[in-house]
Amino acid sequence: MKKSLGPKTLAQPAPVWAVGAYDEDNKPNAMIAAWGGICSSDPASLTVSLRPSRHTYAGIMKHKAFTVSVCPEYLAAESDFLGMVSGKKVDKFAATGLTPTKSDCVNAPYIEEFPMVIECELTGTYEQGIHTLLIGEIKDVKCDEDKLVDGKHPDPEKILPLIFSPGTRAYHTVSKFVGQGFSIGKKYIKK
Amino acid sequence: MKKSLGPKTLAQPAPVWAVGAYDEDNKPNAMIAAWGGICSSDPASLTVSLRPSRHTYAGIMKHKAFTVSVCPEYLAAESDFLGMVSGKKVDKFAATGLTPTKSDCVNAPYIEEFPMVIECELTGTYEQGIHTLLIGEIKDVKCDEDKLVDGKHPDPEKILPLIFSPGTRAYHTVSKFVGQGFSIGKKYIKK
Repeated sequence: MKKSLGPKTLAQPAPVWAVGAYDEDNKPNAMIAAWGGICSSDPASLTVSLRPSRHTYAGIMKHKAFTVSVCPEYLAAESDFLGMVSGKKVDKFAATGLTPTKSDCVNAPYIEEFPMVIECELTGTYEQGIHTLLIGEIKDVKCDEDKLVDGKHPDPEKILPLIFSPGTRAYHTVSKFVGQGFSIGKKYIKK
Repeated sequence: MKKSLGPKTLAQPAPVWAVGAYDEDNKPNAMIAAWGGICSSDPASLTVSLRPSRHTYAGIMKHKAFTVSVCPEYLAAESDFLGMVSGKKVDKFAATGLTPTKSDCVNAPYIEEFPMVIECELTGTYEQGIHTLLIGEIKDVKCDEDKLVDGKHPDPEKILPLIFSPGTRAYHTVSKFVGQGFSIGKKYIKK
């Protein structure tokens, strides 16, 4: 029996991404975003939603660039902290000991200790209520070599990306392999 | 050491959502989307990206409505199938035995057997390369009562949402609780 919960942001799973940018004074900053996802295959693109009042937002608008550093289970406390304070008041890198590294392809910093990072050029925006969708064209993805399958596919069981549960406001991570995509459904295809 | 993988859609975690719509002949249809996410808190909204050539796309444009049924681990094969064939040629509900149920709030069907469903009104679109972002305002969320915490929060450990890994094209699901959001990062806040 299904229960109606009203018009709420309860979709699952939600990512936990550290959005990195240089601020208006060119200092590295990062915040956590759970509202976002991949949004096009070609050009490879993703979207993250930020409130325009965020310190990170002004930096992205100035530099037309941002990064997404995928938050891993083993840096959950550091990741959570990035969403608790504003870069206006606190140097979050100094506070956590995390290291900002300048991207190769865009003018934005990523977090060195995070296992997978994505460099994005801001190519557009879309306003939806209190949030603005930032559309980022992916210019490069970098991943720790020891977390790749066959030297090219990021392995979720090694990256252990955090997953945010909007209702319980809890973090989880990925579990074991369930099945291969575009394969396990074949049993329903009529011969 | 980080390895450059190029401009690819490798962001993690990605959702596995069944996007439901009535087609142009008013027949229920559903397809799988992994490119999407929540995109605003107020009004509660989400985005999913579809290629305009998809059968589901035309139906959503006609009815200005769609649903997201969160694909669970225990229906992984059925979910995968929904992404393998087109509703132009196959009645996916008949093939899998899944049940389309008309939404209360919008003119679109959700999948009865799926544990959590989200009813969306199409309020806008944004074209990004080969995909179109569909912006959906959430009109209601419905969840199986036995999968709620405190009668109101969907429990990811019971819903067991599928997670798509774009590089390995594999499905995983969520693991155990890692930590509480807006809490475990407090140790980095200076007193």
